[in-house]
Amino acid sequence: MNAPRPVIPDARYGERLARTQALLHERGIAALLVGVGADLRYLAGYVAMPLERLTMLVLPAGSRPSLVAPRLEAMAAAATPLVRTGLVDLVAWDETDDAHAIVAGLLAAAPEPSNQRVLVSDRLWAMHVLGLERVLPGRGLGLASEILGELRMVKDPDELALLRLAAHAADRVVAQIAAGRLIGRTELDVSREVRERLVAEGHESAEFAIVASGPNSASPHHDASDRVIGAGEPIVLDIGGALGGYCSDTTRTLWVTGSNPGAGPTPEFRALFDCLREAQAEACTAVRPGVACDAIDAVARGRITADGHGPGFIHRTGHGIGLETHEDPYIVAGNGEPLRPGMTFSVEPGIYVAGHHGARIEDIVVCGRDGPDLLNESSRDLWVVAG
Amino acid sequence: MNAPRPVIPDARYGERLARTQALLHERGIAALLVGVGADLRYLAGYVAMPLERLTMLVLPAGSRPSLVAPRLEAMAAAATPLVRTGLVDLVAWDETDDAHAIVAGLLAAAPEPSNQRVLVSDRLWAMHVLGLERVLPGRGLGLASEILGELRMVKDPDELALLRLAAHAADRVVAQIAAGRLIGRTELDVSREVRERLVAEGHESAEFAIVASGPNSASPHHDASDRVIGAGEPIVLDIGGALGGYCSDTTRTLWVTGSNPGAGPTPEFRALFDCLREAQAEACTAVRPGVACDAIDAVARGRITADGHGPGFIHRTGHGIGLETHEDPYIVAGNGEPLRPGMTFSVEPGIYVAGHHGARIEDIVVCGRDGPDLLNESSRDLWVVAG
Repeated sequence: MNAPRPVIPDARYGERLARTQALLHERGIAALLVGVGADLRYLAGYVAMPLERLTMLVLPAGSRPSLVAPRLEAMAAAATPLVRTGLVDLVAWDETDDAHAIVAGLLAAAPEPSNQRVLVSDRLWAMHVLGLERVLPGRGLGLASEILGELRMVKDPDELALLRLAAHAADRVVAQIAAGRLIGRTELDVSREVRERLVAEGHESAEFAIVASGPNSASPHHDASDRVIGAGEPIVLDIGGALGGYCSDTTRTLWVTGSNPGAGPTPEFRALFDCLREAQAEACTAVRPGVACDAIDAVARGRITADGHGPGFIHRTGHGIGLETHEDPYIVAGNGEPLRPGMTFSVEPGIYVAGHHGARIEDIVVCGRDGPDLLNESSRDLWVVAG
Repeated sequence: MNAPRPVIPDARYGERLARTQALLHERGIAALLVGVGADLRYLAGYVAMPLERLTMLVLPAGSRPSLVAPRLEAMAAAATPLVRTGLVDLVAWDETDDAHAIVAGLLAAAPEPSNQRVLVSDRLWAMHVLGLERVLPGRGLGLASEILGELRMVKDPDELALLRLAAHAADRVVAQIAAGRLIGRTELDVSREVRERLVAEGHESAEFAIVASGPNSASPHHDASDRVIGAGEPIVLDIGGALGGYCSDTTRTLWVTGSNPGAGPTPEFRALFDCLREAQAEACTAVRPGVACDAIDAVARGRITADGHGPGFIHRTGHGIGLETHEDPYIVAGNGEPLRPGMTFSVEPGIYVAGHHGARIEDIVVCGRDGPDLLNESSRDLWVVAG
């Protein structure tokens, strides 16, 4: 797990910048303003802490970009690929400067027409959005995903290599947890073990570790609680984090027997799970270029509805994944975006019966040239374990 | 470290809600719209995952509040203090609903005049800010900190108890790291150990672990790197995370000798550190009710400047801390906010000589009735260690 890890080559950032500027120009958008987060990492290779001090890549459609950063981050900002290779100017600001005004000044100095729109990163904080609106009166603001969504959706080979490593690491953790003791432990305790194991398997962060046992399995985003796991009940294990910046996210459903043959899955749960298992497989199989995102959702939903479990499938089928756990494309009704090779997303139908039990199966799937490429490789069956 | 931990009592959330509504009413603001994050945890006791799906507390100045949440979070949202105790209505939305329109509908139904402003949480994402601007045309948006800043700044006894626990846990980790092996290890490796130890000492998350050795110590927010730590150099160790939701954040400066008496601190570094040590102590001592935030900054800066190190102190003296690592009040030039009992913030001057070395000392300080109450208790001297 300490094998050399693929990295995004420096040259890639220059290409991304050029493609983004070309799209801005083509659509008559003056500039992109990118705050700390996945967009900044994608475009500039800069992993900055999310702080109230403004860090912002100012990317005009047709002129030289700048990276605005607080003075005390200047050394770190200067070491990032685009600044180091001279493609972007570093503009450091001091504690008592008005950073929003500095951004406005850079835009005013750029040759783009001042009546064109400006896009801001989708997760820029309100304090900065309102601050920019104040210094850019009359400029319509839009969201960066309008441009970056379509770039970031399609993963390149380096990104896919990292996503695959992350998926395999998460698979190993699922197997380790399923093989260990579960009965008598709290969900929280198991959740902590999941996080530790994700890091031990090479993740730099373990964002979530849903351990939803017994009736809690009916809450899709259940937070691990003090509930003690017992025999004769299901556990929905939904875990993930980031490895080299790229996210893992996989769900498997376990049934804990306590080695008691009488405490196996109930027929009701087994029927629910079998339906889910087939719906998830059918949705994965339907993945190929040209198929719309909502058609994948419809495959899973159609199967689950036909079997009478429709009201229990209360969420979309999936979400794109990459530098963020949830990003474009969303596999949801109404999203007519056609799949393209390299798009990567979760396929994760679930069926939930409030107060009783629930189940979910989640794989990360790449749209390949001829069909699906599943990054997760662990068994999608119900994991019936002693616990 | 597994002793029962103080919790914020349910009743506190109702009080906070009432105080917030009173302030809104008093200032003629129609409503507060609070997305996922520290403001939501503060007001509603709800710790929700930061997802693209909108979760929002809609709090009109004078009428009944609602918690808007995605259907698949409904079980979790229903279990939060304000919903459970019946003070807030839960409004669940489905995957294909327009959540922003639902919020606008709740505001339209409230009796507050439609020409009054609406405040949004400071860290609400641009996707939601622009979405709300779309459905609330003509409404001026402002930032929630206008109201919540002054409430959150002053900590109550339960909050102080958690902040103290977090600080002591971080102190223990500093001592553990200082007592361990450092030479021959990378900064990254030590940083990982810091994070593990913060969790082992009771933190639920370890947000940052700056390990800045040798010349890297001159970068205040240096990211731990592959640099191997050697003898005869300083390490700035700036660590923190959250315990029971409340943040720790402490910095100590180490000097690693490798047990070689000839590899002790250089006279130049010693002089820099002695100045810093006194400036930090003087700034802490100056803390008391009625003193302005910028006066505390001026004490530290004055001392460092008088000793000729002024140009090396490139950041503010400190930041408030609580549910967020950085929050109001900021200890910075131009912030005339007078300290009040219960305000809690860092005092962390630093001196940095680019290309050579740097040092910082950081304590979390509560403004007590008669003077400062320092939550961190580990030695503020230069930690000269074998490493």
